Amino acid sequence: MSQASSPKPLAVIGAGAWGTVLSLLLARNGHRVRLWARRPELAAAIAASHENKERLPGIALPPDLEATADIDRALEGADAAFVAVPSIGLGAVAERLGSAPAIISCTKGLARPGLTRLSEVIARACPSARIAVLSGPNLAPEIAAGLPAAAVAASTDRSLAQDVQVWLQSPSFRVYTSSDPVGAEVGGALKNVIALAAGMSDGLRLGDNAKATILTRGLVEINRLGLELGGQRETLYGLAGLGDMIATCASRGSRNHTAGERLARGGTLADLERDGITAEGVPTVRAVHRFAEDRGLSLPIAGEVYRVVFERKSPRQAMDDLMSRASRSEW
Amino acid sequence: MSQASSPKPLAVIGAGAWGTVLSLLLARNGHRVRLWARRPELAAAIAASHENKERLPGIALPPDLEATADIDRALEGADAAFVAVPSIGLGAVAERLGSAPAIISCTKGLARPGLTRLSEVIARACPSARIAVLSGPNLAPEIAAGLPAAAVAASTDRSLAQDVQVWLQSPSFRVYTSSDPVGAEVGGALKNVIALAAGMSDGLRLGDNAKATILTRGLVEINRLGLELGGQRETLYGLAGLGDMIATCASRGSRNHTAGERLARGGTLADLERDGITAEGVPTVRAVHRFAEDRGLSLPIAGEVYRVVFERKSPRQAMDDLMSRASRSEW
Repeated sequence: MSQASSPKPLAVIGAGAWGTVLSLLLARNGHRVRLWARRPELAAAIAASHENKERLPGIALPPDLEATADIDRALEGADAAFVAVPSIGLGAVAERLGSAPAIISCTKGLARPGLTRLSEVIARACPSARIAVLSGPNLAPEIAAGLPAAAVAASTDRSLAQDVQVWLQSPSFRVYTSSDPVGAEVGGALKNVIALAAGMSDGLRLGDNAKATILTRGLVEINRLGLELGGQRETLYGLAGLGDMIATCASRGSRNHTAGERLARGGTLADLERDGITAEGVPTVRAVHRFAEDRGLSLPIAGEVYRVVFERKSPRQAMDDLMSRASRSEW
Repeated sequence: MSQASSPKPLAVIGAGAWGTVLSLLLARNGHRVRLWARRPELAAAIAASHENKERLPGIALPPDLEATADIDRALEGADAAFVAVPSIGLGAVAERLGSAPAIISCTKGLARPGLTRLSEVIARACPSARIAVLSGPNLAPEIAAGLPAAAVAASTDRSLAQDVQVWLQSPSFRVYTSSDPVGAEVGGALKNVIALAAGMSDGLRLGDNAKATILTRGLVEINRLGLELGGQRETLYGLAGLGDMIATCASRGSRNHTAGERLARGGTLADLERDGITAEGVPTVRAVHRFAEDRGLSLPIAGEVYRVVFERKSPRQAMDDLMSRASRSEW
C-alpha cells in the first residue's frame, strides 16, 4: 500500500457494516486496527473466522485485524478512534472514549435532545479529544467490494482532517478534507429523512420523475436546515449532502429507503422495530420536525415523513400532498 | 378537467415520445391539439389508430387529437406551438414556425455553432414570437402512465410562463413558473452529458457510490457552465437542472444513459448511430468541451465524456481518472 503505516494502532468502535468496512480500509492501508463489537459473541466470531458474517458477509478481513468486545483494549495506545455505532447507542459509548486523542464520528444521525450533532455528544463526553466527522456517499457493501467511492473528512482541526485523509485514502476510496463538520453532519442526518420519503415514493411505484422531484426539493430542505444550524452551502451541496442523499435514495440496500418502502406498503413503525430495521431517519425526523416548527422553518418533506411515521398518515396521501403543493414559482 | 379550454388550438411540433405526451397532457386539459409528425406515415398511423405505436406504445390518445404531417395545418390559428423535435432538426423546423404567436421550446439540447440555446435558434427564426422553455425531470413514459411529475415553464415573458402553466398543469403534472430560461436550457442540455458519464459508470458496474459522486460533481459542472452563460443558480439546482439530471441518470429508459452504458461495454459512436440511438449529450459534449477550453472553464466530467466519445479513450480509464483526481479540499 502506498500509505505509511501509523506507528500506533487505530480503533474502530462499532462492528456494523460501516465499522467493519472502515476497519478493512485502514487495515488495507497497512495500519494495525482494533475493531470493537458491543456483543462479545460477535467479536469472538470475527476473531475466529476473520469475517463479519452478520453484517458484512462474504468479505474476508485481514487475519491481523483484532476484534474485541473490550473497549478499553480497543483504545489502548490508539492514535484515533473511528466511531460507527448507531446514534441511539452513541451516548453510552462516548463516555468510554476519553482516552482517545482523536475521535472521528462516522455515524449519520442526530442525538436527543433537539438537534444535537453526534460530534457534539462526543465532544461533551471527551473534552480533550480532537474531533472530526467522516461522511459521504458510502454504501458499505460497495466499498467492501472494492468499488470506487469518495468521502469527506471534516474538522475545524485542519491537521486532523488531513490525518483522516491519509489514514483512509486509497486508489478506490478518495477522501476530501473540509473545514465544515456541521454541514457534513447535518447533510448526513437529514438525507436519511429524505431517503424515507424516496422509499415511500418507490414503495408506491411513483417512478423516477417523482423521486427526482423529491430529491431536488429535499436538497432545498437540507440546505435550509443546514444553514440554520451553521453549516455551509458548499458542504450541503457536496458529497456529504447531495452525494450521500443520491446514493442512499438510489439504493435498495439502504435501511432508510427500505423503511420508507415498508411504510408505503402498509407497515408501521412498530413493524419496523419488530423486524430490527434501524432507520436513523426515524429519530431524526422527529427532532427535525419539532425544530422546524419551533423556528418556523418550512420543511414540507420532513413534515410529511413525520406525519406518516408518527401520526400514521397514509403514505399515498402524504406523497400526493407533496407533489401537488400549490403551484407557484419554484423558489 | 379543471382547466378552461383554450378557444384556439395548440400545436405540438414533433411526435417523439415527449411531443406525444405533451399532446396528451394538453388534450386531457380540454384543449384542441394538433400534433405534427415529420413523416406522413407516422402522422397517418397516429390519426388512424389514436396511438403512437412507434414512440409511445400502449398509450391511447384522445380521438379528437389531430395528427398531421402538414406543419402549416398544425399551426393554423394556433395560440402556441410546443416544439419537441431533436436539436439536430430544430433549425429547419424553426424556419416554419413564423406564424405562431408563442413558441415553447421543449427539447433538451444545444445547437451549433458553439453553445447556442435552442430557444435562441427559435427566436432568430421567429423574431415576433413570444418564447418560453419547458424543462424538468420528465421521463415521458411515466407521465403518459399518469405518474406524478413536475416541470418548469421559464420565460422572460412572465405572462407566457403563466399561460404554459395553465395549459399544461394537472393534478399529476405540476408546472412551476420561472423567469430564467437560460438556466433551464443549460441545465437540461448539460444533464445529458452527465447522463452519458453516469451510464458509463453503470455500464462498468461501479455502483451507487460512484454514480452519486459523478452526479454531485456533475452538478458543480452544470452550475459552473450555467452561471458562465447567464443562468441562475436557483434554476440549475432546481427541477430543470438537478432534478432532471437525477431522473435521467436513474433511468434505464434514458437514451443518454443507455448510450453511456453501450460505450462502456465497448460500443462506439458509430455503433450508436447505426442503431438509431439519438443521444443529445453527444453533440452537446462536443460543443461544451470546446467552449470550456476556450474559456478556461474546468469541466472534468464533460472532458472525460468528450474523450471517450470522440477520441475513443477507454471508459474505464476515464472513470478511473475522474474518481481518482488528486485529493484536495472538496471545492
